[in-house]
Amino acid sequence: MKTDPESHQRMTQRRQEGHVKKQAAATVEKGLLIVHTGNGKGKSTAAFGMAVRMLGHDQRIGVVQFIKGALHTSERDFLGSHAQCDFVTMGDGYTWNTQNREADIATARKGWDEARRMIESGEYRMVILDELNTVLKYEYLPLDEVLAVLQAREPMVHVVITGRHAPDALIDAADLVTEMRLVKHPYREQGVKAQRGVEF
Amino acid sequence: MKTDPESHQRMTQRRQEGHVKKQAAATVEKGLLIVHTGNGKGKSTAAFGMAVRMLGHDQRIGVVQFIKGALHTSERDFLGSHAQCDFVTMGDGYTWNTQNREADIATARKGWDEARRMIESGEYRMVILDELNTVLKYEYLPLDEVLAVLQAREPMVHVVITGRHAPDALIDAADLVTEMRLVKHPYREQGVKAQRGVEF
Repeated sequence: MKTDPESHQRMTQRRQEGHVKKQAAATVEKGLLIVHTGNGKGKSTAAFGMAVRMLGHDQRIGVVQFIKGALHTSERDFLGSHAQCDFVTMGDGYTWNTQNREADIATARKGWDEARRMIESGEYRMVILDELNTVLKYEYLPLDEVLAVLQAREPMVHVVITGRHAPDALIDAADLVTEMRLVKHPYREQGVKAQRGVEF
Repeated sequence: MKTDPESHQRMTQRRQEGHVKKQAAATVEKGLLIVHTGNGKGKSTAAFGMAVRMLGHDQRIGVVQFIKGALHTSERDFLGSHAQCDFVTMGDGYTWNTQNREADIATARKGWDEARRMIESGEYRMVILDELNTVLKYEYLPLDEVLAVLQAREPMVHVVITGRHAPDALIDAADLVTEMRLVKHPYREQGVKAQRGVEF
C-alpha cells in the first residue's frame, strides 16, 4: 500500500479523527468477560500477559489453572510468587493422562469451587480461568452453573477464560472473544521439540 | 461430549500414545520465526508473555517496538527495567498520528537498524519486532531486505513479529503463524473505554 504524500496524509487524518471520536464516546468502565479460544497458540500466553500487566498496575488477580500444563512452570513461578496474585493449579495433567472421567470431574469441581470463591469475593480485579473451555467441552462441569456465576459477578471483575472449543453460550455471554487460529505450525512435523520461552 | 467410562478411557489412552510418540520424535532445537497477525487482540500481549517467560529462564531478549502504543506503558516498564532485556521504542505513535510518510519511513529505518543489529549479534535468544507487520504493510521498509536478514540469522535466535496484515512472503518464511481473529468485540459499541490490564 504505497500512496502519494497528500492522499497518505488525508487518509491518516481521517483515521485519527475517527479514533479521537471513538475514544471520546468510550466512558464506561466495567468488568469484561474475555474468551480466548481456537486451535492456535497464544490463548494462555496472552492471558498471562494480561496478568503481568494487571500486577504492573498493582491490581489483585486470581488464577485457576484447570489443566496443568497449559500455563507452564515459568509462568506459574512468576505469578505464584507475586504477593498480589493468588494462583491455584487444579489439573492432574492433560485429560488424556488421567484416563478416568470421574477423577477429572472431581478435579474440575474443586477448581470451580476455588474460581467461584474468587469471582464472588469481589477482591480480585481479574480472575483467569485457564483451560476452563476444555473442562466445559468435556462436560466436567455444568455450563449453566458456570454461566450463572459469571453473570451474577461484581460489575468490575474481569474474567478471562481460555481453551479450545469455547461453548457457544459462553461466546454469547462474553464481551470480547478472540480466536487464536493456527495458520502454520510445520515445525512439529520437522521434529522440532518444545523449547524454552516458546512453549514453556 | 459425554462418553461411557470405558470408551473415554480408550480414547484418552490413544491420545496419550500419540502424544508420547510425537514427543519422542521431536529432538531438534532451532530458532523459530514466529508471526502473530490478524485483526483480533492478543498479538503483542502473547509476544509479551513469551518475553516474560524467556526472562524467567534467564535468557537475553531484545524488543523493538516499531509503533509506540502497541505495547503499553506497563509492559515497557516491566521489560525495559529488566537487566536481560534490551528494549527500544521507535514509533512516534500510531501511523495516523504523524501524517507524514517520509518521517514514518525514517523512523522505521532507525527501528530496523536496531532490530538487525540485535538479530545479527547472536547475543539474544529471542528478538521481538512488535508491529513490524504494519511497517511492512505500509511499505516503510523493503520486505526483501527484512526477509534476507531473517533468513541469514544465527540458527538459535527466535524472532517474533507481530501486527495485522503479515505479508504472504513472511508467512511463507515463518515456522509458526497464528492469526488472532476477532470473533466478538461489542463493548466498544457500548461506550466501554480502554481499561487497565485489559488494553494497557
